[in-house]
Amino acid sequence: MADRCSSQRIPPTTVRRLSAYYRALGALVEQGVPHISSKALSDLAGSTAPQVRRDLAYFGSFGTRGVGYSVNALRTQLARILGIDRSWPLGLVGAGNLGQALLAYRGFHGPEYKIAAAFDADPAKIGAVVEGVQVVDVSSFASEARRLGLAIALIAVPAEAAQAVVDQVVAADVHAILNFAPAQLRVPAGVRLSNVDLSMEVESLTHALTDGQHGAGGS
Amino acid sequence: MADRCSSQRIPPTTVRRLSAYYRALGALVEQGVPHISSKALSDLAGSTAPQVRRDLAYFGSFGTRGVGYSVNALRTQLARILGIDRSWPLGLVGAGNLGQALLAYRGFHGPEYKIAAAFDADPAKIGAVVEGVQVVDVSSFASEARRLGLAIALIAVPAEAAQAVVDQVVAADVHAILNFAPAQLRVPAGVRLSNVDLSMEVESLTHALTDGQHGAGGS
Repeated sequence: MADRCSSQRIPPTTVRRLSAYYRALGALVEQGVPHISSKALSDLAGSTAPQVRRDLAYFGSFGTRGVGYSVNALRTQLARILGIDRSWPLGLVGAGNLGQALLAYRGFHGPEYKIAAAFDADPAKIGAVVEGVQVVDVSSFASEARRLGLAIALIAVPAEAAQAVVDQVVAADVHAILNFAPAQLRVPAGVRLSNVDLSMEVESLTHALTDGQHGAGGS
Repeated sequence: MADRCSSQRIPPTTVRRLSAYYRALGALVEQGVPHISSKALSDLAGSTAPQVRRDLAYFGSFGTRGVGYSVNALRTQLARILGIDRSWPLGLVGAGNLGQALLAYRGFHGPEYKIAAAFDADPAKIGAVVEGVQVVDVSSFASEARRLGLAIALIAVPAEAAQAVVDQVVAADVHAILNFAPAQLRVPAGVRLSNVDLSMEVESLTHALTDGQHGAGGS
């Protein structure tokens, strides 16, 4: 039973909801709540009760009728599925404005994963300490990645520098990348790449708003 | 010709690449570069030359063979397509840690869109000035949205508060939402909702890394 999670591939959209459940359960643990129904959990995580039951059934977790799920046990199980029952050091490349905002984000300083190293190519930034993390020369990425056991890199460099940085990250055997640069990056097979582009997200909205109301604001 | 953009719906993935081209062209304007080839633009934006030509052909922009695109003219055209030839005030709801990081992000303080108002329900946060923006009581969201002409809201509140906040935002006639809360939100038809969840992005990677190497790091 304990290994059931590894016998079946969980769809990416389910994994994302498991993250939301994990976060909701964390808040419940803090409040000392012992059990929770699928309905209450779905309300906290913005899902639905049947969806919660389907998602959790992927790895063989079933609540008890009338009692619900044990908050602690379910959270521990989810941590294992999500791979966050250990602590992951994150490497941040790019200590400019966005990089500094990411360093300030408490979600990247938790027990499950924390920014352990920050890199930049700009001599004016190297040596600075931001949110307790010292910025080091990106040329030492490979040795630092090995020393710290980095498995995940956050990329927050300008678009034109991003592909070279990603090539360097991949060459250093870091095979999971969360990219914030506004560039479409190429990675070899076997490397996981996720893209987050905040300006792009906003501009998709401004485009949609403009597209939907031709001429509005166009005076 | 000037209205060709409104006669054809541009696919979302193309809109996202247009954002990347717009950013690359902004850097070229600063460098005083007058023209650029589709190949050079694709390199800067992490795309390919044929893709650039296909994307720009959507709104009838064709480079001149041997000369390429006029950097200024293309940037102006892209700004219009993306709806950022005007300035959009953004409303931020949630001035906690992530909200403060978003306030610190220079991309949200530009000429095209800037965070014009920040809201929170916590009396300890109301009245504080973060990055030049004063945090006001979220109960005044509707009146402030009307006063400032907010059309886009950024949601950076805890998951359990997110749906109520979104309902309030929608009730105030703000119809485009960029949600950073780890919750799946429901919005009525006609409201644009995009989701960005940084923890979820990281946990999708940690899950993939754990899934791909059973037992690694599990000692």
